[in-house]
Amino acid sequence: MVSLPPPSLRDNTADADRLVRALQTQLETDDIHIDFNLLKKLPFQLRNAAYEVKCILYKNRRQWIVIDIKEARDASPLAGLAVDLGTTTVVLRLIDLPSGTVLSESSFHNPQISIGPDILTRVHFAGKTEGLKQLHDLLIAALNDSIRKICSDCGLRPEDIYFLSAAGNTVMTHLFMGLNPGGIIREPYIPVVNRPGLIAAPELGIAVNPQARVLIFPNAGSYFGGDLVAGILYSGLHRRSDTAILVDVGTNAEVVLGNRDWLAACAGAAGPALEGGASRIGMMAGPGVIDHIELEPDEKRFRCQTINALPPRGICGSGLIELAALLFSAGMIDGRGRFVPQNCGTKLTERSGLPYLVIVPANLSATGADLGISQTDLDSLIRSKAAMYAILETISASVGLSLETIDTFYVSGTFGSIIKPEAAVAIGMLPDLPLNRYVSMGNSSIGGATMTLTDPGCLEEIDAIRDRITYLELNVNQEFMTRFSAARFLPHTDLSRFPSVKVRRRG
Amino acid sequence: MVSLPPPSLRDNTADADRLVRALQTQLETDDIHIDFNLLKKLPFQLRNAAYEVKCILYKNRRQWIVIDIKEARDASPLAGLAVDLGTTTVVLRLIDLPSGTVLSESSFHNPQISIGPDILTRVHFAGKTEGLKQLHDLLIAALNDSIRKICSDCGLRPEDIYFLSAAGNTVMTHLFMGLNPGGIIREPYIPVVNRPGLIAAPELGIAVNPQARVLIFPNAGSYFGGDLVAGILYSGLHRRSDTAILVDVGTNAEVVLGNRDWLAACAGAAGPALEGGASRIGMMAGPGVIDHIELEPDEKRFRCQTINALPPRGICGSGLIELAALLFSAGMIDGRGRFVPQNCGTKLTERSGLPYLVIVPANLSATGADLGISQTDLDSLIRSKAAMYAILETISASVGLSLETIDTFYVSGTFGSIIKPEAAVAIGMLPDLPLNRYVSMGNSSIGGATMTLTDPGCLEEIDAIRDRITYLELNVNQEFMTRFSAARFLPHTDLSRFPSVKVRRRG
Repeated sequence: MVSLPPPSLRDNTADADRLVRALQTQLETDDIHIDFNLLKKLPFQLRNAAYEVKCILYKNRRQWIVIDIKEARDASPLAGLAVDLGTTTVVLRLIDLPSGTVLSESSFHNPQISIGPDILTRVHFAGKTEGLKQLHDLLIAALNDSIRKICSDCGLRPEDIYFLSAAGNTVMTHLFMGLNPGGIIREPYIPVVNRPGLIAAPELGIAVNPQARVLIFPNAGSYFGGDLVAGILYSGLHRRSDTAILVDVGTNAEVVLGNRDWLAACAGAAGPALEGGASRIGMMAGPGVIDHIELEPDEKRFRCQTINALPPRGICGSGLIELAALLFSAGMIDGRGRFVPQNCGTKLTERSGLPYLVIVPANLSATGADLGISQTDLDSLIRSKAAMYAILETISASVGLSLETIDTFYVSGTFGSIIKPEAAVAIGMLPDLPLNRYVSMGNSSIGGATMTLTDPGCLEEIDAIRDRITYLELNVNQEFMTRFSAARFLPHTDLSRFPSVKVRRRG
Repeated sequence: MVSLPPPSLRDNTADADRLVRALQTQLETDDIHIDFNLLKKLPFQLRNAAYEVKCILYKNRRQWIVIDIKEARDASPLAGLAVDLGTTTVVLRLIDLPSGTVLSESSFHNPQISIGPDILTRVHFAGKTEGLKQLHDLLIAALNDSIRKICSDCGLRPEDIYFLSAAGNTVMTHLFMGLNPGGIIREPYIPVVNRPGLIAAPELGIAVNPQARVLIFPNAGSYFGGDLVAGILYSGLHRRSDTAILVDVGTNAEVVLGNRDWLAACAGAAGPALEGGASRIGMMAGPGVIDHIELEPDEKRFRCQTINALPPRGICGSGLIELAALLFSAGMIDGRGRFVPQNCGTKLTERSGLPYLVIVPANLSATGADLGISQTDLDSLIRSKAAMYAILETISASVGLSLETIDTFYVSGTFGSIIKPEAAVAIGMLPDLPLNRYVSMGNSSIGGATMTLTDPGCLEEIDAIRDRITYLELNVNQEFMTRFSAARFLPHTDLSRFPSVKVRRRG
């Protein structure tokens, strides 16, 4: 809110300069920029508002940018949008900027899945004629659709959105900007840009207020994206005096270990088992998706909890982890993750010639078909959990710490629902530690993106996080491979590491 | 020119960040901005050029902006364009940026003349529906035409122009940007913006390199435009330890008095007598235009020098001043500027019922018609010269100096040719001082605009000039009016002030 002294013959400074002068005093800065577009309507605005206006400003590090100018009494909404640019799922969170409250949240399948479910296929596709444009356009069109919907649900217009904050992995960030990600997957693994900074929404094709700015989270390298930088910001790991660990279970397993002095990071394919698309059962969280699962005391039937309590139509990553833990504890799968027919009973059938365990029979599911899990699904889940555990071991060893000495594990999952640490421990995805050391965070990427919309000081923090990260390359790490092999067993080949996990003998 | 260390597994910084890092070292700054548009082609460029590139940068005060990136061996031209946005005439000067040399100069009639020859008519027109857009479009279309021509004459493409620098009066600057100048002419005389700064060329509709930036000279107020700030920069007045004066004879008579510690400025209508449009004879400099004029010893015929020595088709401002001096000295006009029939002989005819003196007879002119000067032309010239002299007296009196004590008078004329101080003294436009105190500068506005293309340090100087100016308002100055009335006589009602001017008695 700014009050300007009205012009007079003694003070006939120009409109724009009068506004800048008032803002300089109020904000105690000499670095204020007014967009050229705003100048055209400025004289009418100032006079209509009798020199009592409110300015929408964005603090881009040291410079304050005037994004829009309204009458002081104008009560129209002022919204921000946080976006988690997932490979599989894009999550939106609409924020009321003056109060910082969340107005609504929604998500959609990344339509780039039609080009390729995995990042690699998309990167190759981007190298073809018009391929990059097609990938970019698919994403932006779906995002614009989703923005229209979420705004209309909240009684807003897309023009009410003035700031966006987007976090994604390095490839997704590039595709979002229409930049060729080709260098990221080829030695020596070079992104086009690590710190995209602030971009005007129209330059990206995003249909919100034409003056809106988009903050794009920086990536620390080809395999350490802005989503994880956002996760660190959200967890507060970088402000702690004691060492803690952040575990992000998404399409990629990403781990950061550190404190306010240093940050070490590591990422590896946790695999598509945990997210919709590649797996027939693991899918993104959404209405009707199973996010918690239990076995009835007689071990005959599964009791499933679905989002919005709708008939089940699939199972999400966190549900899948719980399911595997249940199956293992009930002896329905063995240590190698293979189905044990005598314990599965009639629930074990076959599909496409492979064993298939029915979780929800056709008559109870939303799809009218049996809902279950195949041997292939289980195999990829075990690869994922092994990768995660091996990463945790490798990164802590690399700084000379053992996992047991770490007091706090922040567990986040970008696929939208909350992981139950006990289930993840039961399958050996996370180490067997007292459960009170685990802090479940949900989607930390969108959490971090949201913070930048409500706290302008975050930008400096983000830079500091990015610059402090040491990235540990796993592709060339032999120890990681050894650890990965040892972890491809439920809960682990070395059972002494998981004293709390009861291993049921066959039969 | 920048050499980047090629990427490797040990140094896999992103392309953009690698470039920024190299530039930071080379330029010793941490504030470098790369335009988002450039990122799309950056990876290909760096690899094609084997990491040896040259960057085109613009230093916008403390921030360096990367405008374009080329291969180091790329020898394509790099041009800048200075523009003097005159009310009547727009002057272009094309510069080879690496060497700073002038490639070509051209000018065109401001097509806004079709709306109104004077600024006031245009400001009123801008207030009508679509009026502002029409004025802006007329100017930009003509500028783009002229840019195409001047480039093609020099074997360049408009895309080779990366920087523009434009100076004009406050209204012209507003019309150039498409901003409504309405506030400038109404009490309390408020422009939309005083310091427009740097604007991307496409935002103004200018068809040059799409990455090009346009520096727009700041104005000190409604009646003190960027053209005069450019003039001060060019004269160096603001760097002198002794006090000097800058006299700018254009559509407006503008005067700045000062030194490196202070600057006092004053402007008043010198009138359209000195520039094409309103006057039937005074026109902009161009081929065939009379810029110097003498009377043959027998006083029977005029000897005219034209630009490019072509048959005469008109007379420009400086020619008009010389002509008036000649006529007065030959007794063909009297002290009130009226024709003296007995001294004019047969050259004096009539046109539209008013006395008209033929300078070039029809058989020698380019137009096939007599070329001359009417009583109306003379009347407006006398008003102009009286205004200029009164301004000079008023401004020096306002700081307690007499004109005689000022050592250096910089005389510039934005209408394109060089004013002869002796002629201006002879009609009492400039004070009767030793001629070596006068320094003729030509068009100082385009001179200043050119400096910003070749010397990045100028931007700070411009700010300093603007902030140091004290503007003296003449509209409310009774002394000025008295002085103006006294000066409406050739050379002056008080002949003792002009001892060097020989006044011929009638008959």
